[in-house]
Amino acid sequence: MTIQLYGFWRSNAAFRVRVALALKNLAFEEIDIDILSGRQFDADYAEVNPEHVVPTLVHDGRLVFQSLAIVEYLDEIKPEPRLLPAGAAERAYARSLAMILAADAHPLTVPRVRKYLGQALDADKAAIESWCRHWTTEGLSTYERLLTRRPPAPFALGTTPTIADISIAGQVALADVYRMDLTAFPAVAALAKRCFAVPAFADAHPFQQPGYKTSGEAR
Amino acid sequence: MTIQLYGFWRSNAAFRVRVALALKNLAFEEIDIDILSGRQFDADYAEVNPEHVVPTLVHDGRLVFQSLAIVEYLDEIKPEPRLLPAGAAERAYARSLAMILAADAHPLTVPRVRKYLGQALDADKAAIESWCRHWTTEGLSTYERLLTRRPPAPFALGTTPTIADISIAGQVALADVYRMDLTAFPAVAALAKRCFAVPAFADAHPFQQPGYKTSGEAR
Repeated sequence: MTIQLYGFWRSNAAFRVRVALALKNLAFEEIDIDILSGRQFDADYAEVNPEHVVPTLVHDGRLVFQSLAIVEYLDEIKPEPRLLPAGAAERAYARSLAMILAADAHPLTVPRVRKYLGQALDADKAAIESWCRHWTTEGLSTYERLLTRRPPAPFALGTTPTIADISIAGQVALADVYRMDLTAFPAVAALAKRCFAVPAFADAHPFQQPGYKTSGEAR
Repeated sequence: MTIQLYGFWRSNAAFRVRVALALKNLAFEEIDIDILSGRQFDADYAEVNPEHVVPTLVHDGRLVFQSLAIVEYLDEIKPEPRLLPAGAAERAYARSLAMILAADAHPLTVPRVRKYLGQALDADKAAIESWCRHWTTEGLSTYERLLTRRPPAPFALGTTPTIADISIAGQVALADVYRMDLTAFPAVAALAKRCFAVPAFADAHPFQQPGYKTSGEAR
């Protein structure tokens, strides 16, 4: 099979798919769509993804949208290693952990939202950065409370990484992008450290992408 | 089995779960958490849901969070009628349609975001309403493009309603709450009309909940 991923170094949603592909040892070609420059709205890409967002997975010509839907799809076409645990209750918990990032934290900090804050509400660069840090902190706080209630063993759902760990590590990758300190979130930090010790996670980190190194944001 | 749903009349995420429960003919008791008054942060409810959001499903004492994770859970514990279609590709498309609302449109208009817009960015009531209408319009536009590309037959994925229809109808329910006109989105409006002709959808609409009628927002 051939797999292409339309992504971008800074996209947290692309990060999630990159980790899933690597955990499943699926080779792929990544095509950069510079969402900071608005390339997601170009006519060519609008044909690929009518929502004008990354990522899009192309699997043998089939287009698949939305990072968590892509991860579930990959888990169905190549079940091992499982990214959704066995059992309805465990799968529900894994999905709910994943959606805390994907539905409640990350959507608030994406480029189109940052842009609109400036245009519609006159937010300046500092106010927009503060906005992004606020919602990233909210996501970290929720994960910290949940990981305290049910401690990772050693990953969120058990012995192997799942869609939940991908998302919690993604929340930390967002915090890295916003240069935030994790001291207040020890359970999250410990889990993320465990994740990023796995090459599939480490290699997918925004700062490890070729685009980052030429972005002007590299330190 | 006994099922309780912590919800609220205005919560779009609670709407999704209400529809799913009704389509599966599962009886449940709904417990109101007034998220406009901040009751989701009360200590009692924080014990139930550490993210301080609705909905929470309680199934025989087990807590399940996040609306789409709850819908998937219900589909696993009571598979008929299926809310996720058969086949990995169709399931992926259904999930991606669901996530357009749940990950890209609705999270931008929830109470905590509206509150923070006022507090951190000095947005007044009109600016906040305009913000909500903007992101609701974005969601409607995305759905319109996708439904034009693959027309409903008669529901989004085929002959019976799925998680995709629940979410597209939910996008329209949001538009109803913001008193928006759907003229520019004929494919979405037609699909929503078809959905709301089904009692499971109609009875779950925010305006049909007891809390709406005493809310002061009723017209």
